Amino acid sequence: MKAAILFGSKTDAPVMKKAADVFKEFGVAYSSHVVSAHRTPELLARILAKLEKNGTEVIIAGAGLAAHLPGVIASQTLIPVIGVPLNAGGLGGLDALLSIVQMPKQIPVAAIGIDNAANAAYLACEILAIKYPELKTALENFRKQMKKDLAKNSGGIDL
Amino acid sequence: MKAAILFGSKTDAPVMKKAADVFKEFGVAYSSHVVSAHRTPELLARILAKLEKNGTEVIIAGAGLAAHLPGVIASQTLIPVIGVPLNAGGLGGLDALLSIVQMPKQIPVAAIGIDNAANAAYLACEILAIKYPELKTALENFRKQMKKDLAKNSGGIDL
Amino acid sequence: MKAAILFGSKTDAPVMKKAADVFKEFGVAYSSHVVSAHRTPELLARILAKLEKNGTEVIIAGAGLAAHLPGVIASQTLIPVIGVPLNAGGLGGLDALLSIVQMPKQIPVAAIGIDNAANAAYLACEILAIKYPELKTALENFRKQMKKDLAKNSGGIDL
Amino acid sequence: MKAAILFGSKTDAPVMKKAADVFKEFGVAYSSHVVSAHRTPELLARILAKLEKNGTEVIIAGAGLAAHLPGVIASQTLIPVIGVPLNAGGLGGLDALLSIVQMPKQIPVAAIGIDNAANAAYLACEILAIKYPELKTALENFRKQMKKDLAKNSGGIDL
Amino acid sequence: MKAAILFGSKTDAPVMKKAADVFKEFGVAYSSHVVSAHRTPELLARILAKLEKNGTEVIIAGAGLAAHLPGVIASQTLIPVIGVPLNAGGLGGLDALLSIVQMPKQIPVAAIGIDNAANAAYLACEILAIKYPELKTALENFRKQMKKDLAKNSGGIDL
Amino acid sequence: MKAAILFGSKTDAPVMKKAADVFKEFGVAYSSHVVSAHRTPELLARILAKLEKNGTEVIIAGAGLAAHLPGVIASQTLIPVIGVPLNAGGLGGLDALLSIVQMPKQIPVAAIGIDNAANAAYLACEILAIKYPELKTALENFRKQMKKDLAKNSGGIDL
Amino acid sequence: MKAAILFGSKTDAPVMKKAADVFKEFGVAYSSHVVSAHRTPELLARILAKLEKNGTEVIIAGAGLAAHLPGVIASQTLIPVIGVPLNAGGLGGLDALLSIVQMPKQIPVAAIGIDNAANAAYLACEILAIKYPELKTALENFRKQMKKDLAKNSGGIDL
Amino acid sequence: MKAAILFGSKTDAPVMKKAADVFKEFGVAYSSHVVSAHRTPELLARILAKLEKNGTEVIIAGAGLAAHLPGVIASQTLIPVIGVPLNAGGLGGLDALLSIVQMPKQIPVAAIGIDNAANAAYLACEILAIKYPELKTALENFRKQMKKDLAKNSGGIDL
Repeated sequence: MKAAILFGSKTDAPVMKKAADVFKEFGVAYSSHVVSAHRTPELLARILAKLEKNGTEVIIAGAGLAAHLPGVIASQTLIPVIGVPLNAGGLGGLDALLSIVQMPKQIPVAAIGIDNAANAAYLACEILAIKYPELKTALENFRKQMKKDLAKNSGGIDL
Repeated sequence: MKAAILFGSKTDAPVMKKAADVFKEFGVAYSSHVVSAHRTPELLARILAKLEKNGTEVIIAGAGLAAHLPGVIASQTLIPVIGVPLNAGGLGGLDALLSIVQMPKQIPVAAIGIDNAANAAYLACEILAIKYPELKTALENFRKQMKKDLAKNSGGIDL
Repeated sequence: MKAAILFGSKTDAPVMKKAADVFKEFGVAYSSHVVSAHRTPELLARILAKLEKNGTEVIIAGAGLAAHLPGVIASQTLIPVIGVPLNAGGLGGLDALLSIVQMPKQIPVAAIGIDNAANAAYLACEILAIKYPELKTALENFRKQMKKDLAKNSGGIDL
Repeated sequence: MKAAILFGSKTDAPVMKKAADVFKEFGVAYSSHVVSAHRTPELLARILAKLEKNGTEVIIAGAGLAAHLPGVIASQTLIPVIGVPLNAGGLGGLDALLSIVQMPKQIPVAAIGIDNAANAAYLACEILAIKYPELKTALENFRKQMKKDLAKNSGGIDL
Repeated sequence: MKAAILFGSKTDAPVMKKAADVFKEFGVAYSSHVVSAHRTPELLARILAKLEKNGTEVIIAGAGLAAHLPGVIASQTLIPVIGVPLNAGGLGGLDALLSIVQMPKQIPVAAIGIDNAANAAYLACEILAIKYPELKTALENFRKQMKKDLAKNSGGIDL
Repeated sequence: MKAAILFGSKTDAPVMKKAADVFKEFGVAYSSHVVSAHRTPELLARILAKLEKNGTEVIIAGAGLAAHLPGVIASQTLIPVIGVPLNAGGLGGLDALLSIVQMPKQIPVAAIGIDNAANAAYLACEILAIKYPELKTALENFRKQMKKDLAKNSGGIDL
Repeated sequence: MKAAILFGSKTDAPVMKKAADVFKEFGVAYSSHVVSAHRTPELLARILAKLEKNGTEVIIAGAGLAAHLPGVIASQTLIPVIGVPLNAGGLGGLDALLSIVQMPKQIPVAAIGIDNAANAAYLACEILAIKYPELKTALENFRKQMKKDLAKNSGGIDL
Repeated sequence: MKAAILFGSKTDAPVMKKAADVFKEFGVAYSSHVVSAHRTPELLARILAKLEKNGTEVIIAGAGLAAHLPGVIASQTLIPVIGVPLNAGGLGGLDALLSIVQMPKQIPVAAIGIDNAANAAYLACEILAIKYPELKTALENFRKQMKKDLAKNSGGIDL
């Protein structure tokens, strides 16, 4: 049960850390890497080779602006790639979202909401849970607990 | 190895059929259902219960306009949900894309390009391939063959 | 004469409170609830059942991002639903607006301006005033007074 | 139980007729009027005076482009106004949607999906049903029947 | 040589004041008025009647969000109307721009850049200068001087 | 009483002709010119010099895509410039609209709705009418007649 | 004096041919290649290696949707890359434009108008003309001739 | 080996300076000029004449809002023009991007990412490197070094 988190610049770490936090919560092993599709393509190839070899089963890739990283990864591996569009610059992340989601036929990337790295990890967990029943159970418990916790804080509120 | 394809109206069948075609190509069993998150929520609940029971491992949901179907499914199951935004009306599918991708924390949906149902199925195959090595092999062969075929048709072209 | 205000997270309370303030001003009884269409769908069903039973006549639902809450409510009740798109994330509320307004045929939601919860309540009052003449009178007086007050502050201004 | 349908140009009649069809189906009396907020404001004032007098309880207004009609009506009456953004010109109806929905505080308009005049009438029926129990019953029966009919055509489909 | 500046709320005064400043610079008499197309339509009608009577020759109208004010004015007078879309809310003024510029045939409004009230006044001056040669001369001198001043501050700069 | 209509390509003639039709209707003399801001800037300068000399009092300029023509004209003359954004390419005219309307301080262009060349001419007439009372009278008669004609075709309509 | 034209699918050939036509007109040698950044990355690497070796001095790359091709090329070579966003799908080419133009620091791509492959070649010619004076002369002659030709067809036109 | 950097207002200097920094790093001589396409077109013509004469080989032009500067320059010279859309006002730079990139046939401008003046200079260097082998070598060394530096800071990171 192994995941990886990739992103292009150290400045993206605070947003992408939310994915790591979810993995920690569910006991999913993960590695994390700063690597750029455009500036360090050879490094990216090396990292992907390593991920293939060490049995990484799902990859989360965060990117802003032209946001090619998830798509470039998807072109080099059959490990499922989840793309996190990052809000950078003035367009609110719409540029990154479109660059990530509008992939050509046969090379899919799974896009997640803008800056929503936590959801990338939840999705990764759901994907891994197909194979790992203990993770499925953990997710089920988590969702039940979440509903209980929210129910406590939900319902009547004074406005 | 079981998938499901859901969408809200029979008129979406020609676009969504491209997902089915991919599943057929890779020998992934699938069921397909016309069901609306808004008009037939009880039917949706029944279908999801059946999918949970029969071991469906990944769900593709296509929707246009407000496009709540994938998100509503994701709120009722932990089976990974892949959303296909459909181009309906005058906004080119941007409405459906945003409605599908901008999900709240903890309830992820994997968005795919607008009208790109084939990619939803390719992604589903990659996801299933984590658990099913024979599907992984089939995908690897497919990608190799695709590259060979494209290579033949690629490279030099007269303009 | 009974209304309800629903929204997905306590952090939305300051915006949604503006609806409550209008209801107070016009003496419309209302209940308010934090509930998520995606994270606590069962709680939502329970709340809606209660609202149906206690004679709630109009529902205001605020949501940001994918903003499914108003539409999911509308799929479960025939009480008129007014959706308030909330400005969250980088897209200025356009995502929430489209997710709320582009509902499929037969399951309408009444969309109001982004973050404009006060207008949701004014609209709710106009709707209730069809049945309750005293509310109609109150609205008429309010509008007359508003025009008088504005007229005092309007017209000539030094620039 | 009386509604009105207003729109700016005879060319909009085919789209707006879908609202009339819903009213016919549910036995809601309605009048319909071609009138422009900008070109015939006096005629609009006369029509609104007549609607006030004859007890019209809800108004549907369709408009494209700058789409001021619903808002201008809302500024002259306290009858609830439902605005239908019409897709005209090259922007897919986004211009009309924003012109209709982003109303200032205190003068609300209920926006409905682009070109979705049927939903405007469904919403109008839900609003009228607060006062008219027989309409509520009709809507409930309609929704039940709709679900039955859809259920027949839903569920399993061959792709 | 008489202009008027109208806008819907005192909070818009700082932006609209830039129009007044240009009028002062060129000696164009102007009146300024806070008035809302939606909240005080009767006051608007009275102000427009007064402007017609006192020989106002051009009207500047600033508005945000649904921004109907310029169009509603244009529907009631043949005095040329210049609309200033104001940046309010999360959409950067695009809503106001579209609401102002996409007017129906025969009722034109001249749109100016978002928040660019100064340009509305420069345009008004150019329009008035057709009739008033002394204003034309003043504009010519201003533009010459502007070019001289800019030329001093332009050209070589150290970066 | 003299106007001019400029646009960049003969293919724009059918849209821009609607401006000419309005001028004919109101007896406004006009010249029309195909000229490009980018491809024939010297020709543009010569045409503008001629227009200045022959007493042209208002200029309509239509342009699509980057749509610099109106702004470039405005930078070379103090004759008021009305820009008509033309719908060319895939962005529905939004590109042309923004290129025309977002002019820098001191060099205003009056933007009109996308492809709405008729309104450019109506606006030009309103502007000229400040100086030419007979045109004012003609416009007033036209508007009265328009209202009469529309009133005949307005009001009750069978849906 | 050598250029290359790359694009992802044979269906793009008719648009990209316009670039080839310009190169033919100016006597610029070029090769053209169908190759996909995502589906045939190894073929792309081989083609780029060949282009580096054979002295190609500028590369035009056309792509639609997520449109990574120009950026991926730019990450592998220092030959200047001109990207042509292609209008595919429902978003009018805005997705391709943003994916091409919003490149990260240090890996630039020169974006050209949507579907405007001719301009990509004109830009390429201007770039090559820095080094090749005969091409500069040809461009100067072309522009002079263009102005003459346009001048003939410009100026007065009957509307 | 000579470049120029032009922009419309001193307030743009901090963004445009990033282009100058890159030129300094690579030893490319450059001149920089504040000049407006609209406010000082004659000054622009004089500067361009000077640039032509002194052998400037590539021009970077930054502009916000309607952003005509790069296109107007391109209409007056055959020196390649690189446009930098600047984020000014509320639209995040989308207005400037479209105004710069959507140029008409035959008058190309190379658009770069919003506010990404550094990339404009990197592109300029790549363009100049076609002619100047020493610059090519410098770029190659820079890219190698960049990859080394990034590789040090890339790869494993703790999240």
